[in-house]
Amino acid sequence: MEEKTNKNKVSTEPYRGVRDFYPEDMAIQNYIFSVMRKTAESFGYSEYSASVLEYADLYKAKSGDEIVNSQTYTFKDRGDREVSLRPEITPTVARMVAAKLKEFSFPLRWYSIPNLFRYENPQKGRTREHWQLNVDIFGVKNINADVEVISMASSIMRNFGLKDSDFEIKINSRKILNYVLNDLFFLSKEDAYKVSKIIDKKSKINSNDFRSMIQEIIPERSTEFVELLNSRNFQEFISKFPKDAQLNEEVTEVKEVLEKLEKLGITNAIFAQDIIRGFDYYTGIVFEVFDKSRDNTRSVFGGGRYDELLAIFDKEKVPAVGFGMGDVVIKDILETYNLLPKINSISQLHICVMNEESIGYAQDLAQKLRENKINTTVDYSGKKVGDQIKYADKNKIPYVIVIGEEEVKTGKLKIKELSSGTETEVTEDKISSFINKK
Amino acid sequence: MEEKTNKNKVSTEPYRGVRDFYPEDMAIQNYIFSVMRKTAESFGYSEYSASVLEYADLYKAKSGDEIVNSQTYTFKDRGDREVSLRPEITPTVARMVAAKLKEFSFPLRWYSIPNLFRYENPQKGRTREHWQLNVDIFGVKNINADVEVISMASSIMRNFGLKDSDFEIKINSRKILNYVLNDLFFLSKEDAYKVSKIIDKKSKINSNDFRSMIQEIIPERSTEFVELLNSRNFQEFISKFPKDAQLNEEVTEVKEVLEKLEKLGITNAIFAQDIIRGFDYYTGIVFEVFDKSRDNTRSVFGGGRYDELLAIFDKEKVPAVGFGMGDVVIKDILETYNLLPKINSISQLHICVMNEESIGYAQDLAQKLRENKINTTVDYSGKKVGDQIKYADKNKIPYVIVIGEEEVKTGKLKIKELSSGTETEVTEDKISSFINKK
Repeated sequence: MEEKTNKNKVSTEPYRGVRDFYPEDMAIQNYIFSVMRKTAESFGYSEYSASVLEYADLYKAKSGDEIVNSQTYTFKDRGDREVSLRPEITPTVARMVAAKLKEFSFPLRWYSIPNLFRYENPQKGRTREHWQLNVDIFGVKNINADVEVISMASSIMRNFGLKDSDFEIKINSRKILNYVLNDLFFLSKEDAYKVSKIIDKKSKINSNDFRSMIQEIIPERSTEFVELLNSRNFQEFISKFPKDAQLNEEVTEVKEVLEKLEKLGITNAIFAQDIIRGFDYYTGIVFEVFDKSRDNTRSVFGGGRYDELLAIFDKEKVPAVGFGMGDVVIKDILETYNLLPKINSISQLHICVMNEESIGYAQDLAQKLRENKINTTVDYSGKKVGDQIKYADKNKIPYVIVIGEEEVKTGKLKIKELSSGTETEVTEDKISSFINKK
Repeated sequence: MEEKTNKNKVSTEPYRGVRDFYPEDMAIQNYIFSVMRKTAESFGYSEYSASVLEYADLYKAKSGDEIVNSQTYTFKDRGDREVSLRPEITPTVARMVAAKLKEFSFPLRWYSIPNLFRYENPQKGRTREHWQLNVDIFGVKNINADVEVISMASSIMRNFGLKDSDFEIKINSRKILNYVLNDLFFLSKEDAYKVSKIIDKKSKINSNDFRSMIQEIIPERSTEFVELLNSRNFQEFISKFPKDAQLNEEVTEVKEVLEKLEKLGITNAIFAQDIIRGFDYYTGIVFEVFDKSRDNTRSVFGGGRYDELLAIFDKEKVPAVGFGMGDVVIKDILETYNLLPKINSISQLHICVMNEESIGYAQDLAQKLRENKINTTVDYSGKKVGDQIKYADKNKIPYVIVIGEEEVKTGKLKIKELSSGTETEVTEDKISSFINKK
């Protein structure tokens, strides 16, 4: 049935799968971003940014196929250029670094909190647009960069109020994984790619499904493969390799990362041979953070080393390590652990007026208080004073002052704290120190 | 000629007409946003946000035609929904208010700093993507809301360090303008629309072009019209109206706005009959801020009252006043007046290491300092200490500490201020207070 009201009525719904941020949602978002920012900056990382619009070519070179082909928003602009809404920011930051390679003094420590778009079916924790902290260090070959980035991931979780026992940092080596796929199981490039996509899904599917998916690709040695992937720890995992496996360096690397993290007091980092990360550009250590509460069993975020990505711009390679951490997932976790802050009103003081004539005085007083860093609103509603105070209360504004003839004449004001009902006499010049003291 | 190097080489250029924000650009952007944020919040305004993707229908209802038809990025998503990258945020905020009309206690004071897209030919000051502070107050019919919003515009300019003599706030009334077009010159709806678009361009074109453009639409009375539009002040302008013009309320409104602004100490607000603003949804007072320096003669930003916009959602009308202020224009002006701040390094302290064995100690020290709110970086380059210090200097990091065998053993450290070359002996626990004191 057609709607009968207004044929031209425009919908008040946001586009499917994206979010409106009303002030209370935005306050939460700003809190999450501020913890991310402060932590990244405490490690000396500088913020960068770029447009959400990029040439589509940027994503065709080295992302995971699934993402480019079926999940990206791609369209032609009016000049027939093929453009995409960025599905991730790593290609962008690699592009920016490649463009000014000669001007920089490496290493670069950079972060950003971009919005990213994926054409997915919206569901809990999966939106078509999300924001993601992205942290990258460019120009360090040795594993100290990996350790730094993983320890920043740990610091962010701690700075949100999470305990080390609430989450786990799982670490793996793409190099060892490549050895397994290429040298131990002799998989073709295509089969290796398919198997790596199955490993990436391992934590989300049940073990029988995993087994049968592997069986399809490696029919003869699937048991051996599944057992290897189910190793209980690093020792057991590497003990299954043949004696002549040339893996000394790679094994040492994993051991050193784990040892260094432990020395920094990070007690919840473990090896996990089934961590692979979706993107194809990783080349070394990869890691993923898992929430251990019952409500959120899935991976929270992760990252790794990608030393080859700048090659797509035909420039010299720059070693790089980074991670991304999405806003939707972290908000879910903070809700689970009851770690979201209480939201206060932006206005600290609401000035109510007895009559039209008092408004000028109120506006003038508000102007002075704003200059003294007190966020101040004036009531122009023309309603009764009682209703003006109710408005302040409903909007959680902590203080009110009522201005009438008497106040305009004498400059003697009463400030009322709404939570307690206490009234205190103040002069204009004492208001800001009174509120700041509280 | 085809490029010879790498056929698959991906461009390092951003998409045409948008900007990359390298850390030094981002620091400027963050400074500009922080002044906007602090000022808006001092007036008790709360931040909101929404996705840059909206259903295209939202813009078909009430924007200026030019914007919707020729300048919007519009495409179909994979589900055949027509979507746009928002060219402005007013329709979005109106949508959000309309969606929760019954839940709010009015007035609402809201702000946002969204990115906006327009398909324009890129040139100085005109990019395809820009950011814009948007401020709106919903639910106040009387002109105190107009006064508040205009005085916030003034406060932002002042908080950027601009003097009242550097800029001018021009104020007009759409109601009076409508009277001129409809009742004084009897223009048809189409002609009135065309004339208003010409008036909007008046400050950007020369007076002869303006005259001939008007002549084309109002051939018989063009001289009269142009003279009216060239009035030197409000008195002269309204003196040209017939005696029976029913404009008392509208004239009083303009006078009151100017008087109230003057009482608040805003000395640079004047009436200007040729201010109209591009968007069609304005219904009352409109205003525009002009930079008075020679380098930037054009309008900086503006806004006005739009009491009818929520009608497009088939909801009751909510009176609204707001303005938008773009990042590109304000950055130009701050450059002109030399008001952009000096950018400091994010890292405050760079820890250099004499050898591989000192890195563990350095990482541990860095971790402690970060917890004490000192932004700290550690050097993993393996280069000579002299080169590590040069890196800090080049990246404007103010302090360095060098860690070697001796320091690891004794815990006695020397902190060096790079600008002066002064070295001071400190123990670990004194570093943060030493840096904070400086």
